Amino acid sequence: MVIKMNVETQTNTENVGLVEPQLFTTYEPPHELVLKSGVKLGPITQAYETYGTLNADRSNAILIFHTLTSDAHAAGFHKGETKLGWWDGMIGPGKAFDTNKYFVICPNVLGSCKGTTGPVSINPQTGKPYGLNFPFVTIEDMVIAQKKLIDYLGIPKLFCVAGGSMGGLQALEWAVSYPDGVESVIAIATNPRHTAQQIALHEVGRQAIMSDPDWRGGDYYGKSIPARGLALSRMIGHITYMSDKSMDEKFGRKLIGKEKLGFDFSHDFEVENYLKYRADNFVQRFDANSYLYLTKALDYFDLAEDGDLTAAFKGMKASFLVISFTSDWLYPSYQSKEMVRALKANDLDVSDCEITSSYGHDAFLVEIEGQSRLVSHFLNRLHKEKFHGKRSK
Amino acid sequence: MVIKMNVETQTNTENVGLVEPQLFTTYEPPHELVLKSGVKLGPITQAYETYGTLNADRSNAILIFHTLTSDAHAAGFHKGETKLGWWDGMIGPGKAFDTNKYFVICPNVLGSCKGTTGPVSINPQTGKPYGLNFPFVTIEDMVIAQKKLIDYLGIPKLFCVAGGSMGGLQALEWAVSYPDGVESVIAIATNPRHTAQQIALHEVGRQAIMSDPDWRGGDYYGKSIPARGLALSRMIGHITYMSDKSMDEKFGRKLIGKEKLGFDFSHDFEVENYLKYRADNFVQRFDANSYLYLTKALDYFDLAEDGDLTAAFKGMKASFLVISFTSDWLYPSYQSKEMVRALKANDLDVSDCEITSSYGHDAFLVEIEGQSRLVSHFLNRLHKEKFHGKRSK
Repeated sequence: MVIKMNVETQTNTENVGLVEPQLFTTYEPPHELVLKSGVKLGPITQAYETYGTLNADRSNAILIFHTLTSDAHAAGFHKGETKLGWWDGMIGPGKAFDTNKYFVICPNVLGSCKGTTGPVSINPQTGKPYGLNFPFVTIEDMVIAQKKLIDYLGIPKLFCVAGGSMGGLQALEWAVSYPDGVESVIAIATNPRHTAQQIALHEVGRQAIMSDPDWRGGDYYGKSIPARGLALSRMIGHITYMSDKSMDEKFGRKLIGKEKLGFDFSHDFEVENYLKYRADNFVQRFDANSYLYLTKALDYFDLAEDGDLTAAFKGMKASFLVISFTSDWLYPSYQSKEMVRALKANDLDVSDCEITSSYGHDAFLVEIEGQSRLVSHFLNRLHKEKFHGKRSK
Repeated sequence: MVIKMNVETQTNTENVGLVEPQLFTTYEPPHELVLKSGVKLGPITQAYETYGTLNADRSNAILIFHTLTSDAHAAGFHKGETKLGWWDGMIGPGKAFDTNKYFVICPNVLGSCKGTTGPVSINPQTGKPYGLNFPFVTIEDMVIAQKKLIDYLGIPKLFCVAGGSMGGLQALEWAVSYPDGVESVIAIATNPRHTAQQIALHEVGRQAIMSDPDWRGGDYYGKSIPARGLALSRMIGHITYMSDKSMDEKFGRKLIGKEKLGFDFSHDFEVENYLKYRADNFVQRFDANSYLYLTKALDYFDLAEDGDLTAAFKGMKASFLVISFTSDWLYPSYQSKEMVRALKANDLDVSDCEITSSYGHDAFLVEIEGQSRLVSHFLNRLHKEKFHGKRSK
């Protein structure tokens, strides 16, 4: 199979250049994907992008996973747009995920609203959007669908799977579900199971959406959307993505366009305006039902369903790079460390690092330099071992 | 003036026994309180309780302040009820705030809905509840009203002012507003100014209430209340009162009454049910408009409006005990430490301690033993100095 490259790599540019989104449809009749819940789903379309060139023996592919509300546009820019992909600082020629060496793929997850089949998609049985008739999806289900895409691209084994936050969960799930399909795993600002606090924070967001009268039991397509609830869920989300310190540095107690406190219920502080700005922006770009489905998928995630994390990692073969950030309170470092201990207990090759940063959970999108050093070093070592037969540490 | 004791102190009981709530009304026509906003308010009724006995020279009074959504019922029990006051573990015979020695007063704050004048009170000009016609109140305004109560009780100088969270803000404000009216200050799990993250978290709660159609611009009295919005605000609040660790210890990933995940949008995890339980309970007992007013009062609080905390504490004379908790991420210890540095820079007598606890912000309501030791020692030392003329450290 010939892989069509969708990247015009321009010399002397720092990014991968113009990128064309692609679609891959599978589980078409009579085939269906049997989800973890037992419910069947099909057909499934996945939006994805690729950067760089797949080598002759198809051994240089890296699968990148996005976060809760992100998409397949990880690097470069789309036609007619200038906005770079969400991890452009990490993916490109000479960058951490070096597109001169690697073929990088980023798919949109199952259940999302960014091109891949989800609650906003048309249910072929009704001709209308699924809404809440969309079946429950888990991280495992997302990964099974992604494996189909990787098979379609003719890649027998991924050189690396990598992601932060929800992307990290997918990377871990890949290593567990397909131990022979993954050479290495980079898990950033993530954890092997969602904790009570993480579940609680998501639950507030879900209740905010579901208690908005415009939600209408999920059947709001073509009508007014549950904008108030979705905005609230994003405000909460944004607070958890930043840190106390980064909020203080960015906003402190700065007032918005006024000299004095207003003594009324309009906004006084810049941080209030910022939350509204981010929430309004989010409402325009994300589907409320997708938010419900994906937060549930996150909350359901538990690699060690019987509680034994060391056992959960048994049989894995990949090399691991685990990165966390000092000020990340949504996925605190201790959770990465717990995972590292379980990986090491399985005699796996594990590198781990806690990066000092004040950016909170957002650090994995912001602290490009620190991450790049770690990722480059990790990939270079494995690359040498794989392609030059050297074992260096 | 003779102070009527409202406590039947029973020997051999651990609490102060039966307590009768009291009311004090001031700023009656033609008098009005000029609030910080410049708006005038009157009359003002304050609900309060007292425990213990005021001594002959009225020098043993301790003023205790409650939190955002609490009330004047800090110790003992009300007639026909068995529920003890919210800080009963700290206030009583032989306890940290020893009612055998001290006369303890706890008033409900201005703007609340627990007996003191607030948005739910009848506006004498309209004969209807104030709703959003209630004027903005600040921590400074609350303290001015409390001073009126203390004057009415005939107390020239308080032996101590003490509180946690919003109660701590009031204690600090007392020391700044009435440096000659306060012998000592106990400020627990609090800070000298609200930070961007604290403001942001409150703003989500406010937006949740105000975006509930049942809120009706604050004019919901006698109609259905904005229960959904108020519930959301409490869910967020509860998460901030606990810690990641205490949530994990209490709930982990425990499922509610089912063996398996439900694969639907009903609750799966105990933590989800707990949040709903606490939220439903809160909706029954607290007024949504009060929540708006009091969170704004908190957010407006900044002892150092020009940014210089050391200067803000200039002229204060009180002795200070500052307590924080290791796992409190809503009012983190570093904020207490910042305050301690500013107090010490003014050559004030300051004791400070960070108590190791996993209970998060709630620790000040839970960690009775550790706090009791610190509070008892602090008050005993001052008591000796004051009543026996000894200076001991």
